[in-house]
Amino acid sequence: MSRPRDVPSLVSKAREGDPRSVARLISLVENGDPALPEVAAAMAPYAGRAQVVGLTGAPGVGKSTTTNELVRALRQAGHRVGVLAVDPSSPFTGGAILGDRVRMQEHTADPGVYIRSMSSRGQLGGLSAATPQAVRVLEGAGCDVVLVETVGVGQAEVEIASLADTTLVLLAPGMGDAIQAVKAGVLEIADVFVINKADRPGADNTYRDIQGMLALGERGAGEWRPQVVRAVAVKGEGVDEVVAAIEKHRHWMEANGELRSRRERRAEAEISALALGTLRARMGDLRGGTALADLAARVADGALDPYAAADELLAGLDAGAAR
Amino acid sequence: MSRPRDVPSLVSKAREGDPRSVARLISLVENGDPALPEVAAAMAPYAGRAQVVGLTGAPGVGKSTTTNELVRALRQAGHRVGVLAVDPSSPFTGGAILGDRVRMQEHTADPGVYIRSMSSRGQLGGLSAATPQAVRVLEGAGCDVVLVETVGVGQAEVEIASLADTTLVLLAPGMGDAIQAVKAGVLEIADVFVINKADRPGADNTYRDIQGMLALGERGAGEWRPQVVRAVAVKGEGVDEVVAAIEKHRHWMEANGELRSRRERRAEAEISALALGTLRARMGDLRGGTALADLAARVADGALDPYAAADELLAGLDAGAAR
Repeated sequence: MSRPRDVPSLVSKAREGDPRSVARLISLVENGDPALPEVAAAMAPYAGRAQVVGLTGAPGVGKSTTTNELVRALRQAGHRVGVLAVDPSSPFTGGAILGDRVRMQEHTADPGVYIRSMSSRGQLGGLSAATPQAVRVLEGAGCDVVLVETVGVGQAEVEIASLADTTLVLLAPGMGDAIQAVKAGVLEIADVFVINKADRPGADNTYRDIQGMLALGERGAGEWRPQVVRAVAVKGEGVDEVVAAIEKHRHWMEANGELRSRRERRAEAEISALALGTLRARMGDLRGGTALADLAARVADGALDPYAAADELLAGLDAGAAR
Repeated sequence: MSRPRDVPSLVSKAREGDPRSVARLISLVENGDPALPEVAAAMAPYAGRAQVVGLTGAPGVGKSTTTNELVRALRQAGHRVGVLAVDPSSPFTGGAILGDRVRMQEHTADPGVYIRSMSSRGQLGGLSAATPQAVRVLEGAGCDVVLVETVGVGQAEVEIASLADTTLVLLAPGMGDAIQAVKAGVLEIADVFVINKADRPGADNTYRDIQGMLALGERGAGEWRPQVVRAVAVKGEGVDEVVAAIEKHRHWMEANGELRSRRERRAEAEISALALGTLRARMGDLRGGTALADLAARVADGALDPYAAADELLAGLDAGAAR
């Protein structure tokens, strides 16, 4: 099954913009291929070439449509664009469902656009590890903007905030009021709010509520004030304004040293995720993989508490490291 | 500031049902208090006394209202009920926003109900670690049903599936169609689907779509087929049917050994999260906390790739463990 992995040749072709080589390198990253450290080492120098823009929001707000329109606008402005559509893996089957990628196909003939759906299965550290590495591949291929689209609210947004330079949070009228957005934790990670489907009833309320929430938040003099943009992505309305807000945010980050500090935080999160992934694998390997299961059975029986169990597990791990 | 922590006395009062002692023990758990291992050890024997029911769904589907009505129905059926409302912590401030707990206050005078909002801040392992421990406190206090309500889709649901015996996924018409539910990963974690706001337009479509999706999934002869219940929680309609579905699922789990295996998996997840939390803290401590920051700066510069950086970090950790 496995095709030869001539990483130096793939990297050199990807650098020239060959889409098949780019796709192949991202596959190596996504599948946790043994060649991954070699790919990572080859791509390291291109880190930071692109502005990484995260798009997130609840299912149904129009993320895919908005991404599609942003690609169009960014291409018109002369950018080379990468798109990573991260659908959360199903926890039990590991499959990623790609329901609506069809609309993206208009861009697939454009050599200045790379579009890739990713799942985080099989990757040490999951999304946190695979996605930034795929971003680096796209940077190596010359992209100066990489859009990372994720589904969901909650944990996924914390992750996207740690991997993006600029985070767009999409809302839509009727998808829950502003307090729900706050409960989902989006208020503090959004650099730009996009009120999509702004031609629908309730859009003005959503806009006002978000502006009201932002007004409540204390913000220092030098801090970024999140932009709120109204859009109707299916009609292409408001998309230029979203692009302008993204650019404004980049200029602000560059002027304030924020770009550098976000990227250092991102690297920290990535390194931690990889190291924890390795440690997790080591824990699974303890005593042929039965150590954790044995401890769990004792906790389920009420014979042991989980803190004492974790201490036992770590003692086994330390004994392994000390040998 | 800190009040005396006489854990044995708190535990003994909590066992007698004293709500203040229950609240105090959950606070110790939530805040990652130094007394936490002692609380955990004291509560270990009561593990597994309650059916843990997770409720999840996108913001706006009516989780709080449904929880409230379920508490009412479970109390009428003679159960002692605990409620943990887990609002995702804001990633940057650590605060939990509690917008709509007001509706729960009708139960606060009932000595057979414990209601608690939790945030996962400050806790090694976050939600994965604090919540099961709080469940154990409620089990020690005599609860035989514990409802755990979380906001969000995606990662939060994976977590709730790993900590609940029975997972309820709430949907509402107009919150996105069935394929969106699948994209959010809910199809495989739900034991019971509740189509809330079932008196609204589109409810029949949502119901049909979910049934259609479930019919598509391959399921073995002994496997649980998720129940789909229509409800209008604000009017109390369909709530008894939800309770019946929860009980049906418990009987099925008991008959199939699934209850035991879910609880062992839950204990595994909990132990892993605690052990990884400790390892994460150790990584942060390396060389006075600068090791990771130094490595991250080199990765951001393009001078080092993250895999090599993770290896360096782990080498430092192993050297520490070997000493």
